[in-house]
Amino acid sequence: MSKVPIVENIMSANDQIAAKTRQQFDELGILALNVMASPGGGKTSVIMRTVESLKNEARIGVMDGDMVTIDADHIAELGVPVSLINTGGNCHLDANMVHSALPSLDLDAIDLLIIENVGNLICPAAFKLGVHLNVVIASVPEGDDKPYKYPAMFRGADVLLLNKIDLKPYLQFDVDYFQHGVEVLNPGLTFFQVSATTGEGFDAWLAWLRDKIKERSSAGQP
Amino acid sequence: MSKVPIVENIMSANDQIAAKTRQQFDELGILALNVMASPGGGKTSVIMRTVESLKNEARIGVMDGDMVTIDADHIAELGVPVSLINTGGNCHLDANMVHSALPSLDLDAIDLLIIENVGNLICPAAFKLGVHLNVVIASVPEGDDKPYKYPAMFRGADVLLLNKIDLKPYLQFDVDYFQHGVEVLNPGLTFFQVSATTGEGFDAWLAWLRDKIKERSSAGQP
Repeated sequence: MSKVPIVENIMSANDQIAAKTRQQFDELGILALNVMASPGGGKTSVIMRTVESLKNEARIGVMDGDMVTIDADHIAELGVPVSLINTGGNCHLDANMVHSALPSLDLDAIDLLIIENVGNLICPAAFKLGVHLNVVIASVPEGDDKPYKYPAMFRGADVLLLNKIDLKPYLQFDVDYFQHGVEVLNPGLTFFQVSATTGEGFDAWLAWLRDKIKERSSAGQP
Repeated sequence: MSKVPIVENIMSANDQIAAKTRQQFDELGILALNVMASPGGGKTSVIMRTVESLKNEARIGVMDGDMVTIDADHIAELGVPVSLINTGGNCHLDANMVHSALPSLDLDAIDLLIIENVGNLICPAAFKLGVHLNVVIASVPEGDDKPYKYPAMFRGADVLLLNKIDLKPYLQFDVDYFQHGVEVLNPGLTFFQVSATTGEGFDAWLAWLRDKIKERSSAGQP
C-alpha cells in the first residue's frame, strides 16, 4: 500500500514525457535508438563504428548520457552533432533528461539519433526514453550467463548485439546457451554477433539499421 | 528543500543498520568483504578461486546478492555455507538486506564473510553494508578508462583487483592510464592484477587477505 503507488506515479510521469519525445521524433521522421550495456561492454565503440559507417548516407546525431565527458569527446571527433547529458552521478537516463536535451540538437537535420545510456545492465531498463528501438549490447568477456542474470534488460531489447566476438578464441562462451537465455525472455529477438574492433559482423547490423532508418524516414513524410 | 532531506534520512537509516552489522562482525572476529564489479567483471570467479584457496585454513561464508540463484549454486558446490539475498530486481544490496540475511549463516563458525554484491559499477557504491573492506574488481576487457567514468566506485574501494589479465595480449589496455585514474581518486589504494581463470596474481592477493583475516580475528578475541 505504501510504496507502489508512488513508484507508479513517477513511472507514469516518465512515460508521459517519453511519449511526447517519441511524437516529436515521429513527426520529424527521426529514428531514435537507446543504446544500453554494462560498463565496458562496448557502447561507445559500437556507436563510433556505426556513425563512421553511416554518416555519409544518413544525418546522425548522438546524445551521450554519462557522468563525465570522455565518450562525447571521442564521438565528437567523428564530426557529427553530439549532445552531452551529464546525469550527475545518476545510474540511468530518464525521459526528462532526454527531452530536456532535445533543443541542444538541430533535430530537423537528423535522421538517426543514437542515445548512449549510462553503463549499467539493470537500471536503464526501467526507464522509457521515447525511442523506437532499445539496442542492448552484450559482450563476450562478460560471459554467456548474462541473460539469465539480468533478465529485464534482455526482455526489453528490440535488437541485441553480441560484441567483442574477436575474443571468442580466448574465452569460454557458449553462444547457444547465451541465445537460449535470450530466446526464453524475448522470443525471436533480432540478434547480431559483431566486433567493434575488427568490424566483423557489422555489415549485417548496418544493413538492418539502414532499413529501419528508411522505414522511419518515409513514415515521417507528410 | 524537497528531495535532499529524504535521501539523507534513507542513507542515515542505512548507515545505522550497517553500523549494527559491523559491530556484530567485530564482536565475532569476522572479516567481512563487499565484492563489487560490473556485470561479468568476474566477481563470482574471483570469489570461487579465493574460497577454494583459503577454505582449508579459514572458515568462510558467502552471501550472494543477485536477482537469480546461478552464482550461489556454483559457490555452494565449493562446500562452504552460502546465503542468497534475492534483491527482487533491485540494483544493489543495502544494509538492511545484509542484516536481515545474517541469521541464515552460523556466524560463530565464520572467519571470513564474502558478500557478493549485484553486478553494477554505480549503485552499490552508495550503500554501506557494514563490511570492513570494499573489494572492487575491474577487468581488462572493460577498458582502461573505467576509473575515469565510474569514479564513486573506485573512490570507495579499500582494495582493487584488476581481473582477466590473461586477456591483456588480445586487448589494448594501458595499465598506467588505468592506475593513474585510480590514484587520483584513491591515492595509495592496494591494487592487485589477477586472473581468476589462470590463477596468475592470486598469491599476492591471497597473502594480503590472509593478513587481514588474522588481524580481524585477533582483534575479535576477548
